[in-house]
Amino acid sequence: MDILNSLQTIVGQSNVLTGKDVTSRSVGWFDSNARQALALVRPKCTVEVSQVVRLCYQQSISIVVLGGGTGFVEGSISHEHQVVLSFERMNKIESIDEDNRSVLVQAGVPLQALHEFAQDHQLHFPVDLGARGSCTLGGMAATNAGGNEVLRYGMFREQVLGLEVVMPNGEIITNLRALLKNNTGYDIKQLFIGSEGTLGIVTRLTLRLRPLHNSVSTALVAVSQFEHLVTALRNLDRQLGGRLSAFEVMWQDHYQFIIDDGQKHQAPLSTEHPYYVLIQAANYHDLEADIFMSALEACMNDGIIVDAAIASSKAQQQAMWAIRDDIERLTTGLAPYIGYDISLPINRIAGYIDQLQTAIKSQWPEAKIIVFGHLGDGNLHLFIHVGPTLTAKTKDAINHLVYQPLANLSGSISAEHGIGLQKKSYLKYSRTQEEIALMQLLKKQLDPKAILNPGLIFDYSER
Amino acid sequence: MDILNSLQTIVGQSNVLTGKDVTSRSVGWFDSNARQALALVRPKCTVEVSQVVRLCYQQSISIVVLGGGTGFVEGSISHEHQVVLSFERMNKIESIDEDNRSVLVQAGVPLQALHEFAQDHQLHFPVDLGARGSCTLGGMAATNAGGNEVLRYGMFREQVLGLEVVMPNGEIITNLRALLKNNTGYDIKQLFIGSEGTLGIVTRLTLRLRPLHNSVSTALVAVSQFEHLVTALRNLDRQLGGRLSAFEVMWQDHYQFIIDDGQKHQAPLSTEHPYYVLIQAANYHDLEADIFMSALEACMNDGIIVDAAIASSKAQQQAMWAIRDDIERLTTGLAPYIGYDISLPINRIAGYIDQLQTAIKSQWPEAKIIVFGHLGDGNLHLFIHVGPTLTAKTKDAINHLVYQPLANLSGSISAEHGIGLQKKSYLKYSRTQEEIALMQLLKKQLDPKAILNPGLIFDYSER
Repeated sequence: MDILNSLQTIVGQSNVLTGKDVTSRSVGWFDSNARQALALVRPKCTVEVSQVVRLCYQQSISIVVLGGGTGFVEGSISHEHQVVLSFERMNKIESIDEDNRSVLVQAGVPLQALHEFAQDHQLHFPVDLGARGSCTLGGMAATNAGGNEVLRYGMFREQVLGLEVVMPNGEIITNLRALLKNNTGYDIKQLFIGSEGTLGIVTRLTLRLRPLHNSVSTALVAVSQFEHLVTALRNLDRQLGGRLSAFEVMWQDHYQFIIDDGQKHQAPLSTEHPYYVLIQAANYHDLEADIFMSALEACMNDGIIVDAAIASSKAQQQAMWAIRDDIERLTTGLAPYIGYDISLPINRIAGYIDQLQTAIKSQWPEAKIIVFGHLGDGNLHLFIHVGPTLTAKTKDAINHLVYQPLANLSGSISAEHGIGLQKKSYLKYSRTQEEIALMQLLKKQLDPKAILNPGLIFDYSER
Repeated sequence: MDILNSLQTIVGQSNVLTGKDVTSRSVGWFDSNARQALALVRPKCTVEVSQVVRLCYQQSISIVVLGGGTGFVEGSISHEHQVVLSFERMNKIESIDEDNRSVLVQAGVPLQALHEFAQDHQLHFPVDLGARGSCTLGGMAATNAGGNEVLRYGMFREQVLGLEVVMPNGEIITNLRALLKNNTGYDIKQLFIGSEGTLGIVTRLTLRLRPLHNSVSTALVAVSQFEHLVTALRNLDRQLGGRLSAFEVMWQDHYQFIIDDGQKHQAPLSTEHPYYVLIQAANYHDLEADIFMSALEACMNDGIIVDAAIASSKAQQQAMWAIRDDIERLTTGLAPYIGYDISLPINRIAGYIDQLQTAIKSQWPEAKIIVFGHLGDGNLHLFIHVGPTLTAKTKDAINHLVYQPLANLSGSISAEHGIGLQKKSYLKYSRTQEEIALMQLLKKQLDPKAILNPGLIFDYSER
């Protein structure tokens, strides 16, 4: 085929995979189906990406962009008539400017590689999430990844100083300036961050780094009322002067479900309390560990926190995080389940969860609803299991029960994970018609042939 | 005139100013010329803004949007055939959510009003700048304002959770959700932030608030080499765990020029040092004042800081800031002058300034070049005086000397102030042709009749 020859000319024969080399790969972490594609191409630089995209544009072949394949929302499914553009060879950290605290990377660099690189330079890249070994920085920019330290440092968007993007027609737009302040017209990079690869392909990034802490203080605490969670969050965040980096709440059912899993975890606290919070703060000075302790003590004296376990070693810190991070226990123990990633203003969370539990249990009395999340950001993860089978119809019914109330509560149907194909029929609960029309207009202008990641976020076809 | 009647029908007779009521106003703080306009209208709500814009759109009358009129870059000049849309009546703080730490405001609220309101609720809005009494939050969003605390909290963009915008055809796009995390398709608000009112008109905003500190620690220190400035910044930022909120550097000429102004200021430090830095950190706990002192002492022991004055009272803090903030001394003492607001990676600053001083002094040996800025953000302000007269030709020559080298140094011709009319012929030094073409494409799609703030940032006409 002509197109395969042309692709080989651009990236080299060994970097155009077809047939079994494609189908032997799965779609991603959360989709074990065999990947389908006309070809999977592995460019080594921006110019090759640009040439591949230009070729596809000319031939009206659509492109699915592939980072680490760790997305949750069916964002990188490909079909046998599509070209998959994989960033696996564009995994170089190109340069670091320690004085300026910035780093220039290719889009295929995995998150963990940047963590380690930064740490070697006594610096810190403050986005972290479970898929750190596989997820790529380009994919994280395209999806505006969140994770564990958003409370303190913001989403991925706020770490991006500069971007290089290949447009749907192959044009390269480069602005990799490592500047915190740059008010010279429209901040174009913002368009591409979080657009799930539908407007342009991120090829390189300039990212902001932060000072590395000396140590972290970690505690697992128990709280008896939702209102006290809010108070504890506000008191601790204030007393720690913004150094609070995690405030991860687990509802009782969640904590119990993980702890009851036999030998795997030791319980730092008994399972009788309504809420558990994993609290973490970074320390840059020895005195700050004392401040952490005194802030916790103040909350206990006020009755806002009813029990607390303070990690006194790195092993104890890891054991506490292992409880919070034991997603495998949920995915296996609750199968079949549906997972959610929503957000809403903090003082609406308790009422929303109560209402949702009632609504679901009235239809499925045996349902299990596991709730946990980054409360500091209003971000909740839900795992819902209603019985041994889960039909598409049931799934849709539960989706509506979860998503519909968010519209009136000014919430979001996707706090971190994005929309992809999976959530697009529920987008209306979070965005107005006018907003969706504006998104479609932008897509139409920037990608008139709908070449890039077609079908994600909203429906759009060449008109 | 028909149009005036129609405007009066929308906003009421007393809110359509014409003739003397318009010309008796100046263009803005930095332009004392009389304002010209077909009419200056003062809507009281978003619906009125929308109706005014729709009317102008239908009649192809262009609109100049007016906040506090404190911009530096000729962004709100209007002509006698244009409608000026003033936000002076849309100055209400609509609601606060203390638990969620967010506030909903109309676009015409002055910055200082929000500071005071937040403080009354034990919260902090972390953007601050000299024009605080007049500049409006809508204008600050439209221009992505910077200021004093960017090092810690980021630009205005990072404080915006939600926006309501009136589009050039009068359509209202509202997303005022108070969410830190919301990955539901394109983050449309980012398009409007920093676009200088050329793509849509900000009418209401949801802003993020932060915990209020207990106190601040302030010091003025002297540094003998530029490299030590960089080291001091990095050491202090690390040791203060991110609480460092100001690192304002004054080059010797600047400090001397202000101090030499007779009775106005007392010098906390002698004027013999090459650099002076005003350092400030927020404290949330008593121990943090000790950490501030020990971090400064460590820098002094290492010889990175050669002299220091620590403010021991609020009056002393204010006196130190008064030196940094005495812009009047510069504007009067250096008249005629040109002011600049540039940024570049921190380790390129010293070389750039040396080269610039040489280039300017070779043409104007008597020139005065005053340099100061937010070094933590790579942001420098320059005041350049070359002699008793300043022709347009000289101005342009100096502009090129300042701006041209920034292109190769990956700098920015405008860190905070924006482009407006004033800097648009130099935009090419900071943005590529492809970037400017993309900006023009966005303008063309969103404002096809070029109704809003025409002429700002780049040239664009209806095609």
